Amino acid sequence: MIEFGQQILAAQPFSTFLGTELIRFEQGLAELRLTLKPEHMQQHGFAHGGVVAYMADNALTYAGGSVLGGNVLTLEIKVNYTRPAIGEALIARASVVSSGRTQAVCRCDVFAVANDGREKLCAAAQGTIVPIPAQKSGK
Amino acid sequence: MIEFGQQILAAQPFSTFLGTELIRFEQGLAELRLTLKPEHMQQHGFAHGGVVAYMADNALTYAGGSVLGGNVLTLEIKVNYTRPAIGEALIARASVVSSGRTQAVCRCDVFAVANDGREKLCAAAQGTIVPIPAQKSGK
Amino acid sequence: MIEFGQQILAAQPFSTFLGTELIRFEQGLAELRLTLKPEHMQQHGFAHGGVVAYMADNALTYAGGSVLGGNVLTLEIKVNYTRPAIGEALIARASVVSSGRTQAVCRCDVFAVANDGREKLCAAAQGTIVPIPAQKSGK
Amino acid sequence: MIEFGQQILAAQPFSTFLGTELIRFEQGLAELRLTLKPEHMQQHGFAHGGVVAYMADNALTYAGGSVLGGNVLTLEIKVNYTRPAIGEALIARASVVSSGRTQAVCRCDVFAVANDGREKLCAAAQGTIVPIPAQKSGK
Repeated sequence: MIEFGQQILAAQPFSTFLGTELIRFEQGLAELRLTLKPEHMQQHGFAHGGVVAYMADNALTYAGGSVLGGNVLTLEIKVNYTRPAIGEALIARASVVSSGRTQAVCRCDVFAVANDGREKLCAAAQGTIVPIPAQKSGK
Repeated sequence: MIEFGQQILAAQPFSTFLGTELIRFEQGLAELRLTLKPEHMQQHGFAHGGVVAYMADNALTYAGGSVLGGNVLTLEIKVNYTRPAIGEALIARASVVSSGRTQAVCRCDVFAVANDGREKLCAAAQGTIVPIPAQKSGK
Repeated sequence: MIEFGQQILAAQPFSTFLGTELIRFEQGLAELRLTLKPEHMQQHGFAHGGVVAYMADNALTYAGGSVLGGNVLTLEIKVNYTRPAIGEALIARASVVSSGRTQAVCRCDVFAVANDGREKLCAAAQGTIVPIPAQKSGK
Repeated sequence: MIEFGQQILAAQPFSTFLGTELIRFEQGLAELRLTLKPEHMQQHGFAHGGVVAYMADNALTYAGGSVLGGNVLTLEIKVNYTRPAIGEALIARASVVSSGRTQAVCRCDVFAVANDGREKLCAAAQGTIVPIPAQKSGK
């Protein structure tokens, strides 16, 4: 399953542009990792909020897709930033809170990982993933 | 004021990495533009949701900063995706809904701009911007 | 159209329990009013945040329903509280930002109305309204 | 600590109007219970979304207050409705995800409790709780 997920990630030019890796992908769970580079920063030397939001958005979509199957998209996402994202990598861990035929509600925690491997929560996210209707995804 | 804003944007490595421009910045208003390139896409050929969320996040921060003054940060953001982001550029327009001493609540609409200049809403966002306490921002 | 909306409101025991009125209901727009009474308050003498959230939730659902038609439900809602809800009434004004076959994204402003009729924004909300699938709404 | 919390709840006219009980209140955790009555319903016989949002809002505030101390208020809240709230009671369980001097980010799950005690998740919420500045809360 993780190989399938990695193929999808490799097909996302934006994810390869940033350098994102899918490190866990199971039924109801997904985990993405991004080694932080200078180009991911904002003016204070932290990872840009947009990078953090991207990590949450993408991890939520993977988690939702793992239970909904087929093509999915993120309908909406909410991100609370809890701490400056300082470290050598970001890890986004998403899990499914509730899922049915029409939606999966997922949560994601984004951690900044220090040199010594210690993780600090830098964002908490929640969002809705939905299946793409067949007539749209069929193309 | 717009020159000041553009200096801040130029100091954000992530924004220069993507190619974002600040095209409007006034009291209570901010507008960012991003010419879409292949590296901004996801696997279906649309701009990645993370790019759209980044645009909303950044425009909200500018709008909030315009009324709060000094250093600010985005406390939280919520994004509803309304349509695939297909076009030659994204424009994010943010405005302040309410502001006080301790927070500014802002909204942002993100549009996909077609070749002929027509704009279609692809995301609606809302978020909270807060001043960075002096002891933190002084460094 | 407003009479139809008022019939639905009258069929909501919680809305009649609180005393909510539908004062505007058009294609893409809805406006609810609640005369504040002592039982709507929290411990500081303001309308409880739950009352404000209820007003936003209900107005968003009406606005979304006005364009989606048929039975609808609120999938998710986000509320930013901007000011204590002090006054003699609350007015929630919701409008549709974007709508399609599968969802309507709506925004709502909730105002506290003073004795002299002046309105102050006390909350800004945004949410997703979806049609109820026929097999569920048919009962 | 729970007695202190129950005194605050008893001082909220809206909570006594609905019949809410505080059944758990510890450092970083809060749990509210509401026995569902006919006046809490919407037109389909489920608890109104506004009741569910109220439960989430109030439980989040308690959880945040347990770590921030003193007077607090809910800055913003996001609620995903996952299932119709059908049952004999609602239980809202909130916990703190991250807290500092200026904010606590909390999550809350709202469950519908059936006659036999089984719980089903009907909403997932996330929000920001902040201390009330001394000059405001001193009155």
